[in-house]
Amino acid sequence: MVERLQKLAEEMVRHDFAAMALNAGPTLSYLTGLNFHLMERPVLMVFVPGADPVIVLPELELPKLESLPFALRVHPYGENPLGWPAVFARALGGLGLGGERIGVEPRQMRLLEYELLRTACGDARCLDGSAVFSALRAKKGAAEVAAMRRAVTIAEDALTATLAKVRIGTTEKDIAAELFLQLLSHGSDIALPFSPIVAAGPNAANPHAKPSARPLSSGDLLIVDWGAAWQGYVSDLTRTFAVGDLDDESRKIFAAVLAANEAGRAAGRPGVSCAEVDRRTRQVIEDAGYGPRFTHRTGHGLGRECHEDPYIRGDNEQLLEEGMAYTVEPGIYLPGRNGVRIEDDVVVTADGAESLSTMARELRFIV
Amino acid sequence: MVERLQKLAEEMVRHDFAAMALNAGPTLSYLTGLNFHLMERPVLMVFVPGADPVIVLPELELPKLESLPFALRVHPYGENPLGWPAVFARALGGLGLGGERIGVEPRQMRLLEYELLRTACGDARCLDGSAVFSALRAKKGAAEVAAMRRAVTIAEDALTATLAKVRIGTTEKDIAAELFLQLLSHGSDIALPFSPIVAAGPNAANPHAKPSARPLSSGDLLIVDWGAAWQGYVSDLTRTFAVGDLDDESRKIFAAVLAANEAGRAAGRPGVSCAEVDRRTRQVIEDAGYGPRFTHRTGHGLGRECHEDPYIRGDNEQLLEEGMAYTVEPGIYLPGRNGVRIEDDVVVTADGAESLSTMARELRFIV
Repeated sequence: MVERLQKLAEEMVRHDFAAMALNAGPTLSYLTGLNFHLMERPVLMVFVPGADPVIVLPELELPKLESLPFALRVHPYGENPLGWPAVFARALGGLGLGGERIGVEPRQMRLLEYELLRTACGDARCLDGSAVFSALRAKKGAAEVAAMRRAVTIAEDALTATLAKVRIGTTEKDIAAELFLQLLSHGSDIALPFSPIVAAGPNAANPHAKPSARPLSSGDLLIVDWGAAWQGYVSDLTRTFAVGDLDDESRKIFAAVLAANEAGRAAGRPGVSCAEVDRRTRQVIEDAGYGPRFTHRTGHGLGRECHEDPYIRGDNEQLLEEGMAYTVEPGIYLPGRNGVRIEDDVVVTADGAESLSTMARELRFIV
Repeated sequence: MVERLQKLAEEMVRHDFAAMALNAGPTLSYLTGLNFHLMERPVLMVFVPGADPVIVLPELELPKLESLPFALRVHPYGENPLGWPAVFARALGGLGLGGERIGVEPRQMRLLEYELLRTACGDARCLDGSAVFSALRAKKGAAEVAAMRRAVTIAEDALTATLAKVRIGTTEKDIAAELFLQLLSHGSDIALPFSPIVAAGPNAANPHAKPSARPLSSGDLLIVDWGAAWQGYVSDLTRTFAVGDLDDESRKIFAAVLAANEAGRAAGRPGVSCAEVDRRTRQVIEDAGYGPRFTHRTGHGLGRECHEDPYIRGDNEQLLEEGMAYTVEPGIYLPGRNGVRIEDDVVVTADGAESLSTMARELRFIV
C-alpha cells in the first residue's frame, strides 16, 4: 500500500495534478486496501503529494479504517445529508486546491461526490486523471498475477464440473445456475465479476445475451462466457461447444475463431501495440470472410475490474508492457442462427504473453 | 412501461424540467425494462415530454432494444471513444435543450455520461431530478409488492436451510457461503442485493462487518443480515441469534432491539412521517439506556435498489404513502463485545404497515 501511494505521488507530479480524488471503487481498493460500496452515502478520498491523504466518509464506516498501514486525516459525517457539505468543506477547504488541477475518474466518480468535491475545494478544476491510476494499475505485480491465475483455475474447474451435467435439452438458465453454484463451491469470491452468459443457437449470435429458458438443440453452438474472482482479482473466459450435429458453416466459423484466438494470444509482447494485437486477431477472421461478423474489439484489460486498461482495439496505439493483463476474445456472430467466441486471459511477460487459461479450446460435442 | 413514461412526463412538467437524462441503472430499468451495466461504455437515455425518448448506446447493445413496447430514437456508437461525442451531439443537439433544466440522478450519473450530456446539449443546466424519479418509484404497485414478497420468502427459506448446518465453532465465512448457495438454490436472482453480513461477538458490534474466519463461540450474539432478489426486486432482512450461554447485558440489548423493531413495524401508516417512524423505534432503545449505541438510522426504502427513498431518519419529514416500502432495522452495538440488529421489510397499506417478513424474531440459541 505505502509503495503504491508513493508511486501515485510520483505520477501525480509527472501529470501535473495538485491532487487526486477517488470515490468508492476498485482504484481506491488498489491504493488503500479499503473497500466501500457505491451507496447513497458518498465516500471521498483526496491524495496530495507530501501529506497524509484525507478521507470523508460515513461515521458508520469508521471501523474499516482500523489498522491501516498509513496515516489518514479522517472526516466522518452523520446520517443527515444536509450536514455533509460542511464536513466536506472542513476536510478539503484547507488543502489549498483553489484553481488547481484535481485528477478524478470519470468512469467511477458520480455527480454526488463530484459536486461535494468541487464545492468544498473552491474553484478547483476536476479533470480526467484516469491515466495516472492506469499507469499504476495496468502493470500487475507477481501477487496480482497469482490471484488472477487462481481466479482462472477456479473458473475452469467450475465449468468442467458444470459440463458434466449438460445434455441436449438442458436450458441456458439451468446451465447458468449450475455454473454459478460451481463457481462459488470452487472458491470464487462471493462477488462474481459478472453473471455468466450462456447462449446457444440464435442467442449465441448476441454477444451480450442473457441466459434464457431455451433448451439446447442439435445444431446449436453454445457460448459460455464466465469468470471467477479471487481476493478481488477476476478471470473472464469464453468457450464455445457444439450441440449434436453441426452444419458446415458453424464448423467453419468455429475454426476461424479458434485460429484468431491463437493468433491473438501469440501477438502480445512488450512494445507491441494494443492495435497490433487486435489487427493480428481480426486478420484471421477477415481472411476467412467473416470480418463484418466480428462486431466487437478483440479484448480488454482485466485485474480488479473485469474491464480496465489496456483495451485491445484497432485504434488504441498504447504499447504493451510486461505485467499487463488482458483478454483475447474474437467472435463471429451470424444473426438469427449461431455464434462463436473463444476468450482467454493473457499476461505480458518479458518476451511474449502467457495465457493464464489453458482449458481445451477445440470443438467438443454435447450430446 | 408506457404508463410509467406518461407519469414521468407529468412529473417532469410539475417539477419544471425540460428533459430528464438517465444512465444505466435501476431507474432506467424501472421506466423502460432495459437493463444495462455501468461499464466503460456509456448508455444515456433522454426523456422529453411529448416526444419519443432518445437513447445513445454501444452498437453491441442494440439487440436489447428489440420488442420494446414504445418508440425510441436510437443512436448507436462504435468502439472508439473518440467518436462518441459526435454521436451524442447528433442525438441530443437537436432537442433544443440549450439553457433548459435537465433532471439527472446525482447518485447514479457518472462524470463520463454527464460530460457527454452537457457538451451535447449546449449550455443545458443539469440539476438534481431525484425527486421526480422517486415520486414514481417509491410507491410500489401490486406486481412490485408481489415480487418483493417473493424475495422475502426466498431469503427466509434460505436462512432456515442454512441454520440447520450452523453449530458452535462454525465460522462466519462458512455460514455466509452456505447462505449464499441456499439463496440461489431457493431461486434468488443471480444478482443478490448485497453480500450477506454474518458477524458474531465483537464483529457483531460493527454494523458493516465482513464475514471473517472467526468461529462462533459461546456468549456470542450472531447477526445475519441478508437478502434475495426476485425479478429485480430485493429483500433485506436481519435476524440475531444467541450462541451457547449469553450474559445478562447481551440478553438485555436483544430484548430492547426486539421491542424497538416491533414499535417500528407498528409505526408506519399513510400520513405518518419517516421521522416519526424513526423516533418511535429509537425511543424504545433510548428508554432502555442504549440510545448512543443505536448508531444508525432506523431504515431505508427498498425495491429495485436495496437503499432508495424513503429513508427512515429522524430528520426526514417526508410523509409515508400507501405502497411505500422500507426496512425497520434498529440495532445496539457494544464495541469490542456484541451487537444486535433485527430488520424487517414493511409496506405501507391503506391504514397501517404490513411486514412482508414474518420469520421468528425471538431469541433462538445455536449450540
